[in-house]
Amino acid sequence: LRIAELSRDSGVPVPTIKFYVREGLLDPGHLTSPNQAQYDESHLRRLKLIRALAEVAGLSIATIRQLLAAASSPATSPRDALGKAQYATTPRYDYQASEASRQAATGQAEELIRAHGWRINPNSPAKELLTGVLAALRDLGQDDLLSLAEAYAGPAEQIAAADLTVIGARPTLDSQLESVIIGTVLGDTLLAALRRLAEENASIPEGVRPAAAVAMGLRPEPDASAS
Amino acid sequence: LRIAELSRDSGVPVPTIKFYVREGLLDPGHLTSPNQAQYDESHLRRLKLIRALAEVAGLSIATIRQLLAAASSPATSPRDALGKAQYATTPRYDYQASEASRQAATGQAEELIRAHGWRINPNSPAKELLTGVLAALRDLGQDDLLSLAEAYAGPAEQIAAADLTVIGARPTLDSQLESVIIGTVLGDTLLAALRRLAEENASIPEGVRPAAAVAMGLRPEPDASAS
Repeated sequence: LRIAELSRDSGVPVPTIKFYVREGLLDPGHLTSPNQAQYDESHLRRLKLIRALAEVAGLSIATIRQLLAAASSPATSPRDALGKAQYATTPRYDYQASEASRQAATGQAEELIRAHGWRINPNSPAKELLTGVLAALRDLGQDDLLSLAEAYAGPAEQIAAADLTVIGARPTLDSQLESVIIGTVLGDTLLAALRRLAEENASIPEGVRPAAAVAMGLRPEPDASAS
Repeated sequence: LRIAELSRDSGVPVPTIKFYVREGLLDPGHLTSPNQAQYDESHLRRLKLIRALAEVAGLSIATIRQLLAAASSPATSPRDALGKAQYATTPRYDYQASEASRQAATGQAEELIRAHGWRINPNSPAKELLTGVLAALRDLGQDDLLSLAEAYAGPAEQIAAADLTVIGARPTLDSQLESVIIGTVLGDTLLAALRRLAEENASIPEGVRPAAAVAMGLRPEPDASAS
């Protein structure tokens, strides 16, 4: 593929492709003449992935670079590779909570992990993220929202089970790694969408549903529909 | 409060506070002399909220401005106010899927909404987001990940029910609006953390759990622990 074809097939403008090559996200093409490079299917595949991570998941170039590096770094075992990829997809934050909130949040996070019998690495970035959110809720004086952590834990287990079933069904380690990265990052967005749809549906008061549906421009459905 | 005290109590540096005022995220203080402004508890509360949205949820200044505007815009009813706030917390993306993927994704999203009997506004940004993610997965050739949408829908309903219980228990519309914004945005992060923790736990193969726990530096737990 020439760069113009790569651009057409991926939907990424030529200057953006050149930017990704300069930034190290995409391997350079194979030079066939001093100013002509050839690209192949692996470039196209990588380019589509970068585009989805940037435009759907809204990740920064720096975060995408970390993700791609984790996916291609040598791993000692499949478990190690999957762990690295999963850790790389965990959002970081730079929020410094007050000491009191931090301590209370650490206690709540450890209690939740213990109560569910979860085996978690002490350095797990997901545990760090959980602690950070809980500490922020305390700093914000939103103590009633803290109970959501326990309410979400059961659904999170169901979601994780579905994720691992799909990942485990992939035939090769490379394709499993790809599904960890895409599934984890786009899965967050998928979950955000479904959570909001379920909230939108549930926030229509039961008694006024037909009237509200008309007033808000919702499509009324027959009463016989499954709930 | 003087600006130095506001900075100390919120953990936000003085230049950043001034930046937020210039950007319209924070009301200016009350001028008590030509170069001395006073701030009150409402400024402190708002500043902590901005900080959490930026530093924990990683939102941009532009997104935070939209959220705060939605929360303070005049609403005709509590339902309307909550809907606006919820819509404002839905991530946007600028991914243009191929026409074939877009059509197939729209069909899958509508079928999923119908199968669950969800009442959804046709212009719902959450429906748009769902369609976008599904279309991206198709463009990326990750068709086996498409089934995750159906697998996540049930857990998403449980999560939404927990969200609405907490929101509904708030006494005033203002405090409900606040919980929609904080709970929706930080709730996404909370869920991302719990999903990764549950994945980390579930990805330890059952048979080798104790050995893996040692090898990976996990804290081994007694076999008697609940699972």
